[in-house]
Amino acid sequence: MKLEISASLNYRLSEPVDLMLQIEAADGHGQHVIDASLDLGEPDVVARVPAADGLCEPIWLRASGSLRAEYRALVEINRPDTDFRALAAVPLHRLPAEAIPYLNESRYCPSNKFHAFVERRFGDHEGGAKIGRMRDWIESRFTYVSGSSDAETGALDSFVERRGVCRDYAHVMIALARAAHIPARMASAYALRVSPQDFHAVAEVYLGGDWHLVDATGMARASETARICVGRDAADISFLTAYRDIAFVDQSVKVERATARRLAEQA
Amino acid sequence: MKLEISASLNYRLSEPVDLMLQIEAADGHGQHVIDASLDLGEPDVVARVPAADGLCEPIWLRASGSLRAEYRALVEINRPDTDFRALAAVPLHRLPAEAIPYLNESRYCPSNKFHAFVERRFGDHEGGAKIGRMRDWIESRFTYVSGSSDAETGALDSFVERRGVCRDYAHVMIALARAAHIPARMASAYALRVSPQDFHAVAEVYLGGDWHLVDATGMARASETARICVGRDAADISFLTAYRDIAFVDQSVKVERATARRLAEQA
Amino acid sequence: MKLEISASLNYRLSEPVDLMLQIEAADGHGQHVIDASLDLGEPDVVARVPAADGLCEPIWLRASGSLRAEYRALVEINRPDTDFRALAAVPLHRLPAEAIPYLNESRYCPSNKFHAFVERRFGDHEGGAKIGRMRDWIESRFTYVSGSSDAETGALDSFVERRGVCRDYAHVMIALARAAHIPARMASAYALRVSPQDFHAVAEVYLGGDWHLVDATGMARASETARICVGRDAADISFLTAYRDIAFVDQSVKVERATARRLAEQA
Amino acid sequence: MKLEISASLNYRLSEPVDLMLQIEAADGHGQHVIDASLDLGEPDVVARVPAADGLCEPIWLRASGSLRAEYRALVEINRPDTDFRALAAVPLHRLPAEAIPYLNESRYCPSNKFHAFVERRFGDHEGGAKIGRMRDWIESRFTYVSGSSDAETGALDSFVERRGVCRDYAHVMIALARAAHIPARMASAYALRVSPQDFHAVAEVYLGGDWHLVDATGMARASETARICVGRDAADISFLTAYRDIAFVDQSVKVERATARRLAEQA
Repeated sequence: MKLEISASLNYRLSEPVDLMLQIEAADGHGQHVIDASLDLGEPDVVARVPAADGLCEPIWLRASGSLRAEYRALVEINRPDTDFRALAAVPLHRLPAEAIPYLNESRYCPSNKFHAFVERRFGDHEGGAKIGRMRDWIESRFTYVSGSSDAETGALDSFVERRGVCRDYAHVMIALARAAHIPARMASAYALRVSPQDFHAVAEVYLGGDWHLVDATGMARASETARICVGRDAADISFLTAYRDIAFVDQSVKVERATARRLAEQA
Repeated sequence: MKLEISASLNYRLSEPVDLMLQIEAADGHGQHVIDASLDLGEPDVVARVPAADGLCEPIWLRASGSLRAEYRALVEINRPDTDFRALAAVPLHRLPAEAIPYLNESRYCPSNKFHAFVERRFGDHEGGAKIGRMRDWIESRFTYVSGSSDAETGALDSFVERRGVCRDYAHVMIALARAAHIPARMASAYALRVSPQDFHAVAEVYLGGDWHLVDATGMARASETARICVGRDAADISFLTAYRDIAFVDQSVKVERATARRLAEQA
Repeated sequence: MKLEISASLNYRLSEPVDLMLQIEAADGHGQHVIDASLDLGEPDVVARVPAADGLCEPIWLRASGSLRAEYRALVEINRPDTDFRALAAVPLHRLPAEAIPYLNESRYCPSNKFHAFVERRFGDHEGGAKIGRMRDWIESRFTYVSGSSDAETGALDSFVERRGVCRDYAHVMIALARAAHIPARMASAYALRVSPQDFHAVAEVYLGGDWHLVDATGMARASETARICVGRDAADISFLTAYRDIAFVDQSVKVERATARRLAEQA
Repeated sequence: MKLEISASLNYRLSEPVDLMLQIEAADGHGQHVIDASLDLGEPDVVARVPAADGLCEPIWLRASGSLRAEYRALVEINRPDTDFRALAAVPLHRLPAEAIPYLNESRYCPSNKFHAFVERRFGDHEGGAKIGRMRDWIESRFTYVSGSSDAETGALDSFVERRGVCRDYAHVMIALARAAHIPARMASAYALRVSPQDFHAVAEVYLGGDWHLVDATGMARASETARICVGRDAADISFLTAYRDIAFVDQSVKVERATARRLAEQA
């Protein structure tokens, strides 16, 4: 599966401001960037930070006046739609060092509060089967409501309010998984079938020795998703972080199955 | 049903401190205080505040060194165990002025967050039947765990944690009721069958033109409960409020069905 | 001082919805409604709830399609601009019953957390002088930023964020006053000099045996303010409470010193 | 400076439970472990996780009945007491990848809320001088009160309450630093002069190209502190994490300047 991706950001900046951009599809871990371009206009400073984990190379900008970013990419996804429900959890003492921090509470996922609920509601299942039940539970009880959450909304709020957008679904999924002592993190991504089209956020859980995408909104599939970066929760994976107030002008994201023509151009 | 009640408070005070005591059974509204005594030692100041609503007469003290309060009462409860499940909710526009504030969010009961959950989970029922389902839902899903909550714990936390003590059960009950637009408040009380014996807290909901006790812990019955005072939530009905740090020494509460001997003494 | 007030509300309702309106200037307590009209269109139900405290008569509506409310009033304010800084706090044990609930924590004003700060920062002053210092402290440290808060924002957030709108200034003022054991409540009001013109919210503190307006934004004066209603905090005094989702269309508030012509018409 | 460290943990476990222990002084980054022993009794499972960053090697245990851990170490600290106040902040676009996550909000440090306060209060200073002012501000305004916080307490609460223990001082320090766009993290440590002796927590800020210890309690110095591990905040660096309820029996920590005798034994 090859995805043709484009993203366009347009913001107004009143004075010189530091910005961190995380909008490029990662290369590796089940996906390959065949071709990509990123036009950032002429900011005062541009610096790419080599990724520590091969999953995210944030770009720093310092700009004034405006930020215009145009990203286009052709990405091949080689990742199968693994049936994570069949996978076993890794015993805690066998987790690799890099997975351990994802057992801990984070800004938007105060997972310890969910222990009793998770034990009672999902205690009869283990590993992937448990994660699957959690996912289904969220999907069946939550309503996707655009604009129903903001930068303050965490998993506790969303769990009670029973509604949210992709980040809120992912936060609840992550909080439940961690409460069951299964490492869980958040990935930003470009995914087919996300409606309305936008940057997407999904949970990833560590099962059977690897990370697996779990999307409680039901929109994204592993085989059709290009990951941008991963982190503890929404606090880490913002596509644009501004270190001073900036004003939204417009923004668009488009993710499509690559056409024969685009592939021919590429070849 | 006559209840014999005793309560004993013993606190150490380092310096002169203002204290508000709310430990006397109210006289009226389905209960009659046959006999009562309150020994407060010799504080510097004692002042009783005439109750606005016939339900609570707080006593102000200013004391130093120690607070010792000994309360004993014989209270007749005339209140029936109404089947609130059969009662209708009062249409909002017919609520009396005094019930309206109990529709609003309060310190520990941010009820607006529960709208979607309440609509989805209990939307098929109305009035008392809805309240009954909520009560049963809480009782079946929550675990009573002494010491599992503190003065910071609100209905949001308890709803997620699925555990608490009487005040937490009451907070969740109140939050759910208000989210269904049914006025709900909290009462402090002496109740038979509360184990371990202590000051008790229950929800009260406004149905069929009156307030009805609803105890999601399943311990208190209206016919066996002597109310002390009522308020929006735990922020209003504390049995002892100290306006400076004080140190707990010991405290006990005893509620029993009045014996023939005690009744004979009284006669 | 006579104020000419007009308020216009326009909301779209998708289905029959219960609404509670609190937009009429109260009659009494330092202000007199000379003339007023309220046009509510033709809702299915209209019911006025007699005020318990002479300060607020909420109006219940049930309507569908739209809510259009047009309120006009001519109100004489007889309330002086008392110098509350010179007033003494009422000893706790001499507070009237109606003032006591305003010592307690409420939805948006978890005042107990502010004890240490208040003791340290304002501990050298008493009563009105202390309230005055608190007011000045807030005004000098906070920035009024439209849109910087929402229905979730409480005094804790605002205290840290150092910004907000009138309700946030009032919440912090109330929290600080209560932390100093001075009763404090919130009033909705029409006030001259509020810019941009809108429903206004101010704190009221109980000093010298009466309630006194304190506006940390510096915009409202007691002698130029017509109170609508009072409550614990923003949870109680909303000008419009909808018991189902509704959509804002437009809204306006105008408060002016009454012109000679308007007064002549009235005479 | 050589430190002689001992730590003893004793907990009662009702059933087999997974535990993660982080109590060993790290080897490297300005400190050298000359000699160490760790006696864990005979748990069912012991597994050491190779550290990703050379700063923390968590040990997993599975045990039942009881957990007894006895740790002893002789650690040489080579780290100077750098005057961090003289250091410059690293421009955002020059931060190494490993420092970037420490700009983000975390479980206990919702730093974005502190922007306005930090700008207003500390905006006239830069880099280390700014950090120094923040540290002094916290130390002069906060009171160290044992037992005044719990696992729920975050920087927002502590900032308002103006009191706490070492973790709370560190959380506020971290939140303020991040709000000024300076990476900040939390380290657990053994430190001389901590009174009462216990596991200690301090902030570390990234200045002049390296991490520097900042202790707003004023107790720990870099040259007298043996780091155990680092993380975003208290959620990451707990000395003991139990994946089921366990009961505290007793625990002690002792940190002393190594005596000549101990050093002789070692030689």
